[in-house]
Amino acid sequence: MARRMIRVEDRRTRLSPEARRAQLIDLGTEMLATRTIDEVSVEEIAEQAGVSRGLIFHYFGSKHGFLMAVVEYQSDRLIEATEPDPTLEPLAQLAQSLSSYLDYVTDNRDGFVSLLRGTASADVQMRELFERTRTALTDRVLERIPLIGIPVTPRVQLAVRGWIAFVEETVITWLSEPEPPLSRDELLGMLNWALPALAMTPEDSALVAGLLQGATVDG
Amino acid sequence: MARRMIRVEDRRTRLSPEARRAQLIDLGTEMLATRTIDEVSVEEIAEQAGVSRGLIFHYFGSKHGFLMAVVEYQSDRLIEATEPDPTLEPLAQLAQSLSSYLDYVTDNRDGFVSLLRGTASADVQMRELFERTRTALTDRVLERIPLIGIPVTPRVQLAVRGWIAFVEETVITWLSEPEPPLSRDELLGMLNWALPALAMTPEDSALVAGLLQGATVDG
Repeated sequence: MARRMIRVEDRRTRLSPEARRAQLIDLGTEMLATRTIDEVSVEEIAEQAGVSRGLIFHYFGSKHGFLMAVVEYQSDRLIEATEPDPTLEPLAQLAQSLSSYLDYVTDNRDGFVSLLRGTASADVQMRELFERTRTALTDRVLERIPLIGIPVTPRVQLAVRGWIAFVEETVITWLSEPEPPLSRDELLGMLNWALPALAMTPEDSALVAGLLQGATVDG
Repeated sequence: MARRMIRVEDRRTRLSPEARRAQLIDLGTEMLATRTIDEVSVEEIAEQAGVSRGLIFHYFGSKHGFLMAVVEYQSDRLIEATEPDPTLEPLAQLAQSLSSYLDYVTDNRDGFVSLLRGTASADVQMRELFERTRTALTDRVLERIPLIGIPVTPRVQLAVRGWIAFVEETVITWLSEPEPPLSRDELLGMLNWALPALAMTPEDSALVAGLLQGATVDG
């Protein structure tokens, strides 16, 4: 919000390099919300910012450098937006974090889908960035897993990594359907259950199911 | 096996177009087992087959056409190799099918990883082929889900689709680790549990856990 206001006021005015960089990344982020990464146009960004294409290349080196900066910024926003609230009990933290995740990717739908499914997924630097993001999300989950009574074993570490892929796949499929057969709450309910379900063993399942009965996991 | 023998005998001899096509695809498949798709060399394939590069382009139109044919053949082999044995009870079918899946991707490791993680993942035709393969695997699972007492709802359809992504992610991660912290059986145990765990709701979990206690799900 603050970022947007700076942008509007200072459009076509002199900005500090930091503010200009932030303005350009913000414009790229807005564009990526409703376009695929291949459709992001440096020319349009320059025009909207009232600067030359050359200035964008000056700040970011290349179009690829600019797109990397935009996606890196989005990745940071995603991680911030999904930061769990430590005052909630563990499964409520999960529900609230997943709800924020779903809001975030819904608001940035086209860019999100194109990044994970499009040509960007073949870009080595982009893939490294996605991996860093997934690792950050995975580590955050692994810190909290013991709180629901499941010890962090190599099996659980692998399961949580797979859970991130499960969430991405189901959310992208859900977002891609013109009329999703599942409501947002039904999807959240499934995603919430999926983490303890994957992390636990058959032996734990009754225990975790009991935990979940009590918890609000429907978003 | 039969395919391989044909190839060796008939190398540098006249083959029917069908046999030649099969020979070239077989050579490509062997190469893709230990190389990434970008490292597959049409020149080497031609040399191994004792034919000209031109003949390969004649049969497949382009290098891309050849690679598509190889990956399509592999996709068919994967689906055949993981065909469940209908004489087994449902969870044993799952265990045996996943065990075959793990054998298959282990034998074709480099190609498999490069296809799902490399530049091929940005190739529209390749992605469509992967989607068809995932859909075939998903549909096969959905046919059997009711057999473990879980009705096929939109939620379950989405969960099974996500489970395929979970399996791919965890298997690729497991294959990529020089010294996997999980044994093959531990991995299979996790993959086997994951399907019913994701398909069921917390209410079903005790029931399914009970089912699994009885079943051999450790590969």
